[in-house]
Amino acid sequence: MKIAIAGLGTVGAEVACQLIHHHSTITSRAGTEMTVTAVSARNPDRDRGFSMDGIAFEQDPVALAARDDVDVVVELIGGDEGPALELIEAALTAGKSVVTANKALLAKHGARLAALAEANNLHLMGEASVAGGIPSLKMLREGLAGNRISRISGILNGTCNYILSTMETTGRGFDDVLAEAQDLGYAEADPSFDVDGIDAAHKLALLGAIGFGTTPDFGGISISGIRSVSALDISFAEQMGYAIRLLAIVEKHDDQVMSTVQPTLVPLGSGLANVDGPLNAVEVHGEPLGSVIAMGPGAGAGATASAVLADMIDIAAGRAALFFGGPAKDLTAPVKAAIDHSSCYYLRLTVVDRPGVLAEITTVLSEHGASVDSMLQQGHGDDNGDTVEIVLTTHDVNSSSMTDAITAIHALDAVTETPTAMVIAASS
Amino acid sequence: MKIAIAGLGTVGAEVACQLIHHHSTITSRAGTEMTVTAVSARNPDRDRGFSMDGIAFEQDPVALAARDDVDVVVELIGGDEGPALELIEAALTAGKSVVTANKALLAKHGARLAALAEANNLHLMGEASVAGGIPSLKMLREGLAGNRISRISGILNGTCNYILSTMETTGRGFDDVLAEAQDLGYAEADPSFDVDGIDAAHKLALLGAIGFGTTPDFGGISISGIRSVSALDISFAEQMGYAIRLLAIVEKHDDQVMSTVQPTLVPLGSGLANVDGPLNAVEVHGEPLGSVIAMGPGAGAGATASAVLADMIDIAAGRAALFFGGPAKDLTAPVKAAIDHSSCYYLRLTVVDRPGVLAEITTVLSEHGASVDSMLQQGHGDDNGDTVEIVLTTHDVNSSSMTDAITAIHALDAVTETPTAMVIAASS
Repeated sequence: MKIAIAGLGTVGAEVACQLIHHHSTITSRAGTEMTVTAVSARNPDRDRGFSMDGIAFEQDPVALAARDDVDVVVELIGGDEGPALELIEAALTAGKSVVTANKALLAKHGARLAALAEANNLHLMGEASVAGGIPSLKMLREGLAGNRISRISGILNGTCNYILSTMETTGRGFDDVLAEAQDLGYAEADPSFDVDGIDAAHKLALLGAIGFGTTPDFGGISISGIRSVSALDISFAEQMGYAIRLLAIVEKHDDQVMSTVQPTLVPLGSGLANVDGPLNAVEVHGEPLGSVIAMGPGAGAGATASAVLADMIDIAAGRAALFFGGPAKDLTAPVKAAIDHSSCYYLRLTVVDRPGVLAEITTVLSEHGASVDSMLQQGHGDDNGDTVEIVLTTHDVNSSSMTDAITAIHALDAVTETPTAMVIAASS
Repeated sequence: MKIAIAGLGTVGAEVACQLIHHHSTITSRAGTEMTVTAVSARNPDRDRGFSMDGIAFEQDPVALAARDDVDVVVELIGGDEGPALELIEAALTAGKSVVTANKALLAKHGARLAALAEANNLHLMGEASVAGGIPSLKMLREGLAGNRISRISGILNGTCNYILSTMETTGRGFDDVLAEAQDLGYAEADPSFDVDGIDAAHKLALLGAIGFGTTPDFGGISISGIRSVSALDISFAEQMGYAIRLLAIVEKHDDQVMSTVQPTLVPLGSGLANVDGPLNAVEVHGEPLGSVIAMGPGAGAGATASAVLADMIDIAAGRAALFFGGPAKDLTAPVKAAIDHSSCYYLRLTVVDRPGVLAEITTVLSEHGASVDSMLQQGHGDDNGDTVEIVLTTHDVNSSSMTDAITAIHALDAVTETPTAMVIAASS
């Protein structure tokens, strides 16, 4: 199999190094000769740990698609339009299968590109696009293919998980830890794709599409990032027996699909609370299985290369699955759940410390059907008008009722800042 | 695809029910009609939750292999010889692919049967044989195919894990919890296959074969079961920050492979310590990946059926992998590691409570190169000759030195019972 690699950043260089330096192992696993024949990168001259001898170089990545000495194109350029998309379309049109790690592009164009691949008897593979080195798409699509999937949940963004778990272990604030993550290379200079939940939502759109046989529905995902999570929230949550994680969840209710990416309280000691640092996790619930969870490195050159290589070996060995498990043309449009989802909530309020405030708040909650499960208070102001932090957890309440309750609580005179609310994960 | 099921116990009945009651889902995932055409069981008349209308019944399971209306035979009879083996051989000879959950049979005959299947362009599939509903073989063989695997470790026996984690949470003894597990159906009337580590070793032999490209080597595995683990050990381990799990580990040192199944101390809070009750876990280390761990139900009708169905769908979809990842004829004979493996140890001693005993023990350890890391003592006998329990953990020491040290310690006058020693898992 003759392989072209477009994009020689850390991942592309690692894929090339593995294919070249471990050629015999990979060839033996694939059952056929695996050779890098062409590459494309901005700078042809940089030392990337492998020899360019005998490897063609193209300045224009899209030119890789036209080469006769290429069977499979590996797209590691990034971006959901532009050269990445042009290259993939050109390759699939020119009879070349494609392996990509590009979640944004697959979430946006995956259904159309998979259909194009299938129409031309080619493969579109993207294991590296979700949860890095965890073979999550393969697990869901093939390993659990006999199940009726009810829910897929995951910690899908390593940057957010690094920030949240570092805030947890150090007590430091979001901005401080983000700055450190940027210094360490765990977060981008512009971190919004990660910390605002966009990246996790791209991945969730793909998991949902595969699990439920729908077209990827990025636009249907309710997304909240982690910027609003404070050190105080993490400390309160811990006192109440929870860790905070950015959870991506897609679940099916009858024929409707509900997708959310939001900071969520998960019980300490649970599998998801145990996912620390830049790790990712994917949990799948279905019948007759029950559930399985897989954890591993969500990013990084080695983990991503592992997934890219697995896709290439699947193609070479003649066992590559359809991207969505079934034909792309059979994907249905997802019906976004109109139902009002019921959850337990965590609510942090900054209030004036005077008698009767707690009664006012619990009255509002009660009027909206939310009963209080537990309460914590930090700081005492001697009833002199200082503010204190109050944390409440509620029993199950509908999300729309809770939204109304929060608006009403915010309007109380005694409540001095915008309330912070987070969902508490249902015990599975 | 026309399917015959041999053995209609809880798993076989669940597989049939899934195929019949969820026919359209499974058919759509497989991309082809999936139909149960024939079954075999001891009792044809028992109600198993599905209608036998239109399904042929054979008293003799081996007769399924000869039927013209069968493409794939699902073997769920059990036993590593007799009808299960005869059926699989007959099916693979008669042009029918085979799906089985039979770890003992695959560990013993898997290389030969896979070669037979490959010679006849058929498939031998056994996802359900290892770690129940976790797609562990697929993960290792396909999802991580681009890696050079260095270690595979797992909690592979749900019965042992149920017993150990119940002992941990209740403080009860082994015999007591085993009896309860037998009442609950988690343990067999004759529990030796489970509690003596045999079942876990069968599964480890298959994981090692796939990970390292060797023939399955059950005979090369050093096996200790969990009968010797006492409530006292679990309590001491917990005080020292560990849980005790029956860990199955196969690892590669240069070209040598070392396989062990033994009760092992794992750090509290680690992924493996978090595996409770009848769950299983499989962790794979390799380059360039790093490591991934998957957890899920290790047994039970639903989990096992999930794995059996995945194998059938892979066959139907034309993407079934070779059982061992590569051709069975290319498997090499494993070279059992002759090297002396270094570990930290947990050592529990019952000793006469008199001055100088601890010095005698630490002197013996020191003479064998084992230095003490930490020490706990339970009970005080006022130096009057009563016995007390002493627990020591050591720094890294070679296993042969430790064996010699234990023999020498056992020979001390003050040591009144056979010492209990367990390995402490290396932090990964």
